[in-house]
Parts: sequence; C-alpha cells; structure tokens
Amino acid sequence: MTASAARAVPSQIDGYGPTRPFTGVGLPPDVITRASAKVSPSVHGRDKQLRNLEAAFDACGIRDGATLSFHHHLRNGDQVLNQVLAVASARGLRDLRIAASSLFPVHAPLVDHIRNGVVTRICTAYMSGPVADAVSRGLLATPVVMQTHGGRARAIEAGELQIDVAFVGAPAADRCGNLSGAEGRAACGPLGYAMVDAQYARRVVAVTDHIGEYPLVPIDISQEQVDFLVLVDSIGDPAGILSGSTRPTTDPVSLQIAETAARVIAASGLLVDGFSLQTGAGGISLAVSQYVQASMRERKVQGSFGAGGVTGYLVDMLEEGLFRSLFDVQCFDLRAVESYRRDRRHQAMSASMYANPHNRGAIADQLDAMLLGAAEVDLDFNVNVTTGSSGRILGGSGGHADTAAGAKLALVATRLVSGGGPKIVESVGCVTTPGESIDAVVTELGVAVHPERVELRDRLLHCGVNVLDISVMRSKANTLAQKAPATPEPGRRVVGVMEYRDGRVIDVIREVSQNR
Amino acid sequence: MTASAARAVPSQIDGYGPTRPFTGVGLPPDVITRASAKVSPSVHGRDKQLRNLEAAFDACGIRDGATLSFHHHLRNGDQVLNQVLAVASARGLRDLRIAASSLFPVHAPLVDHIRNGVVTRICTAYMSGPVADAVSRGLLATPVVMQTHGGRARAIEAGELQIDVAFVGAPAADRCGNLSGAEGRAACGPLGYAMVDAQYARRVVAVTDHIGEYPLVPIDISQEQVDFLVLVDSIGDPAGILSGSTRPTTDPVSLQIAETAARVIAASGLLVDGFSLQTGAGGISLAVSQYVQASMRERKVQGSFGAGGVTGYLVDMLEEGLFRSLFDVQCFDLRAVESYRRDRRHQAMSASMYANPHNRGAIADQLDAMLLGAAEVDLDFNVNVTTGSSGRILGGSGGHADTAAGAKLALVATRLVSGGGPKIVESVGCVTTPGESIDAVVTELGVAVHPERVELRDRLLHCGVNVLDISVMRSKANTLAQKAPATPEPGRRVVGVMEYRDGRVIDVIREVSQNR
Repeated sequence: MTASAARAVPSQIDGYGPTRPFTGVGLPPDVITRASAKVSPSVHGRDKQLRNLEAAFDACGIRDGATLSFHHHLRNGDQVLNQVLAVASARGLRDLRIAASSLFPVHAPLVDHIRNGVVTRICTAYMSGPVADAVSRGLLATPVVMQTHGGRARAIEAGELQIDVAFVGAPAADRCGNLSGAEGRAACGPLGYAMVDAQYARRVVAVTDHIGEYPLVPIDISQEQVDFLVLVDSIGDPAGILSGSTRPTTDPVSLQIAETAARVIAASGLLVDGFSLQTGAGGISLAVSQYVQASMRERKVQGSFGAGGVTGYLVDMLEEGLFRSLFDVQCFDLRAVESYRRDRRHQAMSASMYANPHNRGAIADQLDAMLLGAAEVDLDFNVNVTTGSSGRILGGSGGHADTAAGAKLALVATRLVSGGGPKIVESVGCVTTPGESIDAVVTELGVAVHPERVELRDRLLHCGVNVLDISVMRSKANTLAQKAPATPEPGRRVVGVMEYRDGRVIDVIREVSQNR
Repeated sequence: MTASAARAVPSQIDGYGPTRPFTGVGLPPDVITRASAKVSPSVHGRDKQLRNLEAAFDACGIRDGATLSFHHHLRNGDQVLNQVLAVASARGLRDLRIAASSLFPVHAPLVDHIRNGVVTRICTAYMSGPVADAVSRGLLATPVVMQTHGGRARAIEAGELQIDVAFVGAPAADRCGNLSGAEGRAACGPLGYAMVDAQYARRVVAVTDHIGEYPLVPIDISQEQVDFLVLVDSIGDPAGILSGSTRPTTDPVSLQIAETAARVIAASGLLVDGFSLQTGAGGISLAVSQYVQASMRERKVQGSFGAGGVTGYLVDMLEEGLFRSLFDVQCFDLRAVESYRRDRRHQAMSASMYANPHNRGAIADQLDAMLLGAAEVDLDFNVNVTTGSSGRILGGSGGHADTAAGAKLALVATRLVSGGGPKIVESVGCVTTPGESIDAVVTELGVAVHPERVELRDRLLHCGVNVLDISVMRSKANTLAQKAPATPEPGRRVVGVMEYRDGRVIDVIREVSQNR
C-alpha cells in the first residue's frame, strides 16, 4: 500500500534509461560506495584568477555534452547561471546537462538555450517560472530529473551525477579561492548546496563580484577545492536573492491553521528539552514558528537546534536561547545572513550533512518537528509540491521528501482550497513525498493523522485537538472548491522523472497540453 | 643534483614493495584520482553509542590485517591508541597496520604489540620514544613508512593508504557523533589530522570522555562522517597533550640565532602587507615569532595569516591585528585552544587543506616565511629531522617537508652543535626534506643561503646580514663538536621508508646496532 504501488512508473524512460521503482521508504543499503573524483592539483604559485568566463571555459575544456552544476543560494536574483550559459551558447556548445540545485523565474534565458539545443538535459530539486513551463510543455529533449536536496547530494557522492564543472556563485572570495556567502554585496549565507558539488566536480570555478583580502573568515568552501576564480560585475541582484514570503501570515484562516499546527507540536510530546524544528519560509510556517516560540518560552523548553532554510525567526529563537544552535544550508533573509556572519552557533551545513539519506546520519534525521507545505495532499497522505492542478511543474521537493522522512513529526499545513481548486484530493497529480513519511495534515478544518500514527492521534485527542479523517477533509475541500481537480492525461510523453531521495523513481511528470 | 641522486633507494623493499624514487620536487601530476570510499549509511533512529571499545571492534568487524588509524592531537597525553590496541591484543588480533599521524613516548605499550605480532605495519609522520627505538632496532616486521602530514592526507585521498577503521579521539562529542576539540577536559583544539581519516575510512569510531548536549558548537568533524561513539573514562592526560617546549628560548646563543632569522625575514622583502608565517613550537621558533611581531608592529604590516601547529604567540599576533586569521591544524598550547573556542578568525584546517601537495592549493603553499628546525643539515641543504646522529629514529617530517616546499622563504634555524655533535654535516644521515626546498640556514655563525637563491642572498647582503657558505658552517661545527658525526652502516636491513609528500621514496632508514 505504498504511494508508488498506485503509480505506474515505466521500467524504461526515453532519455533517462532504466528506472529503479520506489517501493516504500524502507531502510538504506548496508554499504554504499562514494565515487572517486578526478582532481587537477594546483601548480604552486600559479594564479587562479582568470580573465573572464570565456577563459574558464577554455581552462576547464568544456565540450559538447558536459555537465555544468549551479547552486541556488542567489535564488531569484542569480545572474551566474545566465552568464555562464550565455558564454556556452556563444561558443556554440551543444547538448549540455545543467545540474542546478534549483531554477527560478530569473533563469528564463535558459528556455532559449533549451530551444536551441545548447541544453538538452536538466536535473534539479526545484523549478518555477518560464523554464518549468517550457519543460512541462515538452521543450526539453529529455525528461527533467527532479531530485531532492538530499538526493542530489547523494547522487553526486555516489557518482550517479557526475559534474564536469561546478560554477559556484560566491558573494565573497579571496585570491586563493576560499569562498564565503557571509560577505559581499550579494551576501546570501552559507553555500551549503555548492559544498558537495565542489567536493566531487572535475573542475570548480568560483564566480564572484567581490574579492576580499586573503584569507576570508569564515570560509564556506575552501581553497583546496577551487580550481579557478572569475571576477564579474555582478553575481546577482540582492533584492531577488532574498525573495519569497518571509513574513508570518496575517490571514485569519492561515493563522488558524498555524495555531492548530502549533497545538499539534505541543501535544505531540516532542516539545521538551532538546526539541528541534525546521520550518520553511512560507507565511503559515513562520506563524507556526512564532507560536512554537511562545510555547517554548512558556514551558521553559531548551531546544537543541533549528534548521533550514534559515529565517530571522529562527535566529530570534537562537538569540533568545531557545535553541543551542542553528544548522543552515541556505539563508532566506538578511537577518539570517547577518546572524551567520557573526554568530558561531549559527553553523553552516552542506546539502549532504543536511539531508543525504546515505551518509552516517543527516541533520534532517534529527528533526523533531518539520513544517511542510503542499500543493496537493491525497487520501494516502502523499504530497505533491512539484506540479500544479494543471499538471504543470511549479516547484519541486527541495528538502520536502528529505525532512518528511527524517523528522519525528512531519506536519503538512495547508488550506483546503487554493486558487479555487481543492488541495485535498483523491490522488495527487504527482507524488513528491510519499504519504508513509507524513504524520499529519493540518487544515482549517482540523488535523488528519496518518492511520499508522496511532500514538500521535491519541495524544492529539487527549489534548482536545480536532482530529478527523482525511476523507472528510477531501469532501469539504471539494465542497469549497470552485473547480474540479485536473484530470491526468496519462498517455502523454514523460517530461519529468521524480527521483525519491535514494534515486528510486517515485513518479513521472507528463507533458501538458499547450492550452493548459 | 637532487638529494635523491646521492641516495641509493632500492627499487624494491621487503615489506614495502616497489619504490618510486624521489627525483626532485618538480610539478604535481596534471590529474590525480581521489579514491572511492565505502560507507555504511546510518539507520534512522539507531543509537550510535556503543557500550565499549570491544563493542566497536565487533560493530566494525575488525579482523587480522586491518588498518586502524589514529591522530595525535592528544600528543604525549594520548590514551586512545593504547586503549584500542589493548583491546586488539586481548582479542588475539594479528598483523594490524597502525596509521597514526604521529607516535609519542606515551605509546610505549605498542612495543609489546609489535613484539607479539599484533602490529606488523606502521605508517606515521613522526615517532619518538620507545616505539621509535624499537623500530630502529628492527623489531617491526616491515619497514615503518614515514610520511609527511600533507603526504599522509594525500595518500589517504589517493587510496594508497586505505583505512579500515579510524579511531578519532574527541575531547567532546554529542550523541550523533559531531566531534570537537574545543571543549571537554582534554580540549586540544581543531582535529585537523583526523578530518581526512574520517572522510575516507570504511568505519569511523569516535572515542570520547565527554558527551555534551546536541549539537556541538563548533564542530570539527560532523555527524555524517561518524559511525559509532564510545564513551571512555579518559581519552588523555591534559598535561601531556600540550607538551614540549612552548616558551621562547632565553639561551643567548639561541636568541642570537632567532634574531638573525628575524633579520632574514625582514630583509627578504616578504615582510609587507599580506605577510604570512608559520613557526613550530620550539624555543628558537617562538623567539623568532616575537622578533617578527615587533617588526610587523614597527613597520605597520597587516599580515594575512599565521598557520600551524598554533601557539599562544600566534594568537597574540592575531589579537593584536597583525594577522587577519589563523589556520590551525592542531593547537600546541592552552591559549591556542581557548582562542579556537571563541574566535571565529581562528580557523580549523584539515591536514589536506594544510599541506596536501595534490589538492587545488594548500595553505602551506601560501606561506611567506616558515621557520624550520633540524637535527642535521648538509652541504646540499638537505635536512634531517627524522634520525639522530646515532641513526636512530627520533622524530620525522610532520609538516617539515610540506611547508619547506610551500613557503616562499623556508628558513632552517639551528645551532652548530648539539649534544656534542655537529649539526651541519657533509651528508645527512637521512633526508627528511630535500635541500632544493630550503632557502637558507641560520646558525650562530650567520646565514648560509641556498646557491640558487641569488636574489635572497643579495637582499641579505644589502641589509648587512652575515652571509657565508654552508661549508664554512660545517667546518666551524666540526671544530666545535666534541664527537664526529656517526658513520652510516649501509649494509643493514631497511627498517624505515621515507616517503616524500607525493609518495616517492626520498630515503630509507636502516637498522641500528643494539649498542648504538
């Protein structure tokens, strides 16, 4: 009765190859093999700084078919990927694979590179905007591979995702290639996603608009991992870097959901000394963290850590002494960046330390409570944060499936309807996170507890939380919705392969009609 | 005319295998391959803490012939290696290989394990005391492999030195296996040497006497690299951890040498903004750093970094603003430990970042001035810090050959005679560091500049430094000496193989007579 059982994953997908189907979360293998890596030792005294990106293409010997990696700490302000691909295109390169930890609307120029055959393969953990639209409509020659943040780190370490050149956008660098996200005009916080790329890529090119005095303090990625350094006018627009909702919701319905979610956490038995928490940067999540903050204060709970995607709200909790430390793979706002710069308790973590399911213990596995969003949740508790009701790609797992698997209490908080459509559905259009790793779904109607979490249900009932069956939520969502959920179009071409964090295929994404 | 040219390194050595002979420092290869590594992913929710060391042997499946690694941050206070090998011996294990970053007198019990066949192979970067004596006398079944600190990191990364189980003595740990040298009763500073072991070993066992609250701050080795955790009564005697000379010399002759060395640095043209320095913890070195400190203050030089083996004297310079940062692979005194605990500018570095010749740029390569000691220096500027005049092993490279190769100014500071024997000799008994990477030798007589460093010689002469030929130093040393340098006994069995930092064999060590 796993999510995948209901999903007919083809055994072979054109442009992807044979699939290993997801059959339930299960246990990790006893032994895994981390890939060997080829490295070019630096020559003593040779300058790492190159004239421009063109010179980096020459120095790295980038050819047709190469895999270039990028990270998304600069989010919707990123200018590195576009600059690099403009060079690739001008050089007439073809058939490149882009391994970007996430893609945002700012990466719209990539659509032309796809159309022109410069880029024919993409793997990423999240994509939204014109590139996502183009892929959904079938423009890319091969299916996009949608990974999780932890799964991407795992794939790199396992050698499944071999990177020829990692382009690391660095808000600050020194002449030897020590890199930091703590300083510079585009300061964005720790470069957690890029850390794994830098360790395994054949070549590492740091792209920066700020070369500071040697050596940097603190260092996110150190000089022994960086081949070349390119100074550009700008790596990104700070206004776009810290984008998205970073305020707690003020909407009454969302606030009610947040309050209920906080009650679930309080009732779960986890809100005791040592408590740990991760929330996203969405309005409901942030409101939950504020309610939890108040509860911790009231109960005098000494928490262990907050993790993420870190916002100023987690920083507040650190500074108030509610957490001993923060583990930060990327910052979501300036207050978090500032905290990372000056507070040693605010610790960087790599994507692997964050969420790789095949290392010796990720931070995600130590989470007590994780607040998750959803585009859709279904009766099996499967969550979709990858496609919209139209079937188009509008996001992706990021750390969703990783933290859901890791956290003791994986809580989805969502409204019943959005944009007129129901968010609690019979069966999600695409499985991002399997229902077996979700503990409860909180809506304005109350809390649906996964049927296997009997103890949690009892605790909630004991505390007077309104517990109801998820099918009741579905009915109510249907009643409230002004339009029916989209019907899948099963016959269409596969344009996306959803890899679970361990690389097994949990679902596919199919081409949408042009008029959807 | 390289050091090796004069050394007849056998093409094959029993118990070592075929040798790649050293033929000069040269350039690194264009490409190297970092080894793949096998890792056992953690199982979610399973406790890492084991009952005792015996349980760790079971959990890791340690068998005859296994390679166990150790690090030496606890120096002559270390109790981890002895405890682990006592268990190995009690279990009747045979033919173990010990890959210890250094061995000290405290490790005397290892002699019995060698005698009994529990241990038949050793590789290390430094050894002194009873184990060194026993190896010199031929007790070990195979030649000890003497590496450099950077060479050891390189060999691990290259898969030449494959570690089955790394035992990491950790002054502080948390329940998930985050490790730190900043806290605990045996606090010793950053665990730089163990970082590489933890990344590549098949299994990593943390041995600690202090489990703090989760999570540790700061973290030297993080939880995703640690398999198991064993709590013991004591990992080491703090009094022995910070051993050795950590006071500047007060002896007039040594002070004179230190003053001359400082004048060489001042005259070299390197003592300008961005200046970087590494000194050991010897009395002359520390005195030099104090003279340099005064010069920097006087000239208003803003240095970049101090590195090491960090002492309180480098910390003083950091805090005075003479350096922007410290790079620390291990602390030599409590003031350094305290600085590492609270000052973010005091940055940890792994052995690979410190000195691996085959990464993309080590800290050692960024050094301006390096102060080196010597047991002997010869007319080719070759330095021996491995064997004494009797031919017995009494030390080893540590970072000597690494920093000599990396630093712009590699300065040997030594007295002409010691213990009645000459320190400037015709030909060193054992080449630790090839003469081509030494720039000058400073003694109480003046400064001998390597014949190829013409510019340096001219600068020194211009500044009135007493420059003389090294053969003059040798003659004077011979005159002062009360005994002749030992004559080698070339026919005897090879008991040690000296690997240059890139793994080529630069010399061998031969068995000494029992009565030497």
